[in-house]
Amino acid sequence: MTAPFRIAIAGLGTVGGGVVALLRSHADIIAARAGRTIEIVAVSARDRNRDRGVDLSSCAWVDDPLDLIGRADAIVEAIGGADGIARDLVESSLRAGIPVITANKAMLAEHGAALADLSEQAGAPLCYEAAVAGGIPVIKALREGLAGNEVCAVYGILNGTCNYILSTMRETGADFESVLAQAQAMGYAEADPSFDIDGIDAAHKLSILSALAFGVRPEFSRVHITGIRQVSADDIAHAGALGYRIKLLGTARRGGDGKIVQTMEPCLIPQGSAIGAVEGVFNAVCIEADPVGTALMVGRGAGAGPTASAVLSDIIDLARGAVRPVYGIAPSALRDGAWGDIGDLCAHYYMRVTVLDKPGVLADVAASLRDHGVSVEAVRQQGRNPDQPVSIVITTHDTPRRNIVAACDDIAVHGHILHRPVLMRIENL
Amino acid sequence: MTAPFRIAIAGLGTVGGGVVALLRSHADIIAARAGRTIEIVAVSARDRNRDRGVDLSSCAWVDDPLDLIGRADAIVEAIGGADGIARDLVESSLRAGIPVITANKAMLAEHGAALADLSEQAGAPLCYEAAVAGGIPVIKALREGLAGNEVCAVYGILNGTCNYILSTMRETGADFESVLAQAQAMGYAEADPSFDIDGIDAAHKLSILSALAFGVRPEFSRVHITGIRQVSADDIAHAGALGYRIKLLGTARRGGDGKIVQTMEPCLIPQGSAIGAVEGVFNAVCIEADPVGTALMVGRGAGAGPTASAVLSDIIDLARGAVRPVYGIAPSALRDGAWGDIGDLCAHYYMRVTVLDKPGVLADVAASLRDHGVSVEAVRQQGRNPDQPVSIVITTHDTPRRNIVAACDDIAVHGHILHRPVLMRIENL
Repeated sequence: MTAPFRIAIAGLGTVGGGVVALLRSHADIIAARAGRTIEIVAVSARDRNRDRGVDLSSCAWVDDPLDLIGRADAIVEAIGGADGIARDLVESSLRAGIPVITANKAMLAEHGAALADLSEQAGAPLCYEAAVAGGIPVIKALREGLAGNEVCAVYGILNGTCNYILSTMRETGADFESVLAQAQAMGYAEADPSFDIDGIDAAHKLSILSALAFGVRPEFSRVHITGIRQVSADDIAHAGALGYRIKLLGTARRGGDGKIVQTMEPCLIPQGSAIGAVEGVFNAVCIEADPVGTALMVGRGAGAGPTASAVLSDIIDLARGAVRPVYGIAPSALRDGAWGDIGDLCAHYYMRVTVLDKPGVLADVAASLRDHGVSVEAVRQQGRNPDQPVSIVITTHDTPRRNIVAACDDIAVHGHILHRPVLMRIENL
Repeated sequence: MTAPFRIAIAGLGTVGGGVVALLRSHADIIAARAGRTIEIVAVSARDRNRDRGVDLSSCAWVDDPLDLIGRADAIVEAIGGADGIARDLVESSLRAGIPVITANKAMLAEHGAALADLSEQAGAPLCYEAAVAGGIPVIKALREGLAGNEVCAVYGILNGTCNYILSTMRETGADFESVLAQAQAMGYAEADPSFDIDGIDAAHKLSILSALAFGVRPEFSRVHITGIRQVSADDIAHAGALGYRIKLLGTARRGGDGKIVQTMEPCLIPQGSAIGAVEGVFNAVCIEADPVGTALMVGRGAGAGPTASAVLSDIIDLARGAVRPVYGIAPSALRDGAWGDIGDLCAHYYMRVTVLDKPGVLADVAASLRDHGVSVEAVRQQGRNPDQPVSIVITTHDTPRRNIVAACDDIAVHGHILHRPVLMRIENL
């Protein structure tokens, strides 16, 4: 048998601890699939004395993660953060020619192109299956399994925390704040949840998928992001009555003009559709490509188990010597994306506006839509208490975003309108 | 750039022709992902003069597929058939140390273990992503993406023809024979459809997935197979009324005792479930594994595009030098499966029996179930015309298959029973 493959792990939180636990519990099966044993030779974490429920006595323990370099055949970076010590470790390791495995979507999304260059120059692979939807081998699917395809779209549900919150809001009718608090109590949301609920984490992942799909440098800053803080129990109920579920959906699509539009925002999705049925902490990724057509993958997105599974996939690839460029093609071949104008994004839209129920209010709203060329598909007005607030829910035919946004700008300043209209895209997936 | 990767293709039907077309239409993107150009240097097919819509003038043309060996870096076997010239070509090529790519599930299912040995001894990879669900990179997912997992079950919809027929029967209420004829007219079913509708093709695929999942030698003969010929419009309607869809479902599960049971048979699946929602020519594969949990993949199963996509994935792997043992572990490490007794398979069951509506008939049926320890969950009797045939539909609680089969044996010989009861497993996925 080939010599053991030696890894060093920096960070022993959920990710690093999960990798250690998996290597202990599944040692035989992993060795069989890797063709050699995987040995943890060194670790680094802030607190050496914390009980992590795993035996680390056979590993060297270093205080400075950088001291891991040179001790192993590959480094597992499980520290986190786009910059700081995590980035320092990844760059130093690659520069030293040592392969790196990471779950760090922020770093890949923000510095991915530079890291791909570095990886190429140093001849040291950078692996990151765990960075997107740990329980779904989607990096491998895009980079290898569908490598013969031209991708025209990749979209999906990429943040389990948001999907859990939105699913629970729908099931219970509760509002965002109370479900968030409950998710925090259960450990499904962080104490500071903004990375998740503001869509940042999911947008990091989307920009990585987009780079792989289209052969472009990842551009996190080109993702149009809206989080889920503004999604109300009312909107979820209205969407349900229309046959839709509200999901934080990421989409990256390349149009016929070659321009790519990346969005991460709450969307209405048909409840009977495959993605609409993905609930709770599950993630889903859908790829539309020629000639394969549509391929969908659903699995757990986060947590120690799925993440460790993804890290082990990378470790086994390295142990087998199966190596790819970071984004599937030579970094020099990665292009700068041509980014489409979000205003051109044509879609059906859901609009909700609360008005005082006075004569002529609906006519004013309808006139604003007409003035901006927005064609109404259906209107739903609930309740009828003269002079009281009432919700008007409108769905539109296909319309460029700039038109419906301009109509909303008009409507917002009408008399008798109690708030700026709530606007969400409908994705009839 | 590295030298071109040279392939030779044997067979220019749907699979081979699709590969040629894809290599022509997507040459640039494929070269970027493979890190080198892919060149078709030689082909072999029965009829040299048939117009295949692709330019093959730059390729050498040989009459005997065996003459392709030695001309290329890898052979694409797209002839088909478990034995004969296809097997001869694959074995000869491997023996000569030339990698082989194939979509031939019959050969993999029936001779897979011997081929894996040969591949290992000769140091020549044997790749077959296209053999199972072409549009879903499931071989790669099981062998690489989830390589750190212990799989406890793999199941799914593995034959697009059957799924198309069952979906159409449900949508139209038409019976099996007329939908089959229509599927044949549309090219979704072969002139001799038995390989598909009798479950053989799907069982071939299941035994390949099972080998990858459990690290055992593939044992097609250990798949308990029932095709879809006996599924009636009546049963589809009854299942629908109960909230289920009937699908040809393949399951391979390993129990706590380590024993594996492989089945391919029509099952009732909840219509709201992810797999229950997979309709038409789509395939679905679900993997349950530790620590990843449940991972589902859905995509097109067959046709030129998806199959060519899968073959290209293998070609690109070979061009990149990313090579694995045939079943993910060294052939010497593959075990003989410990196969469970189908009689032990515990499940809920659906039973339909047509009786003459005489006093005491239901009591007789119920007594037979009781005598064999089968606990009834629900009974549904439609219509009431004394002395006329009437359907009794019964669903059971969890029961070993041998008990419900014995009960059916009893019921079949009662007076007033017009046919042996129809029995189908319920899979509450």
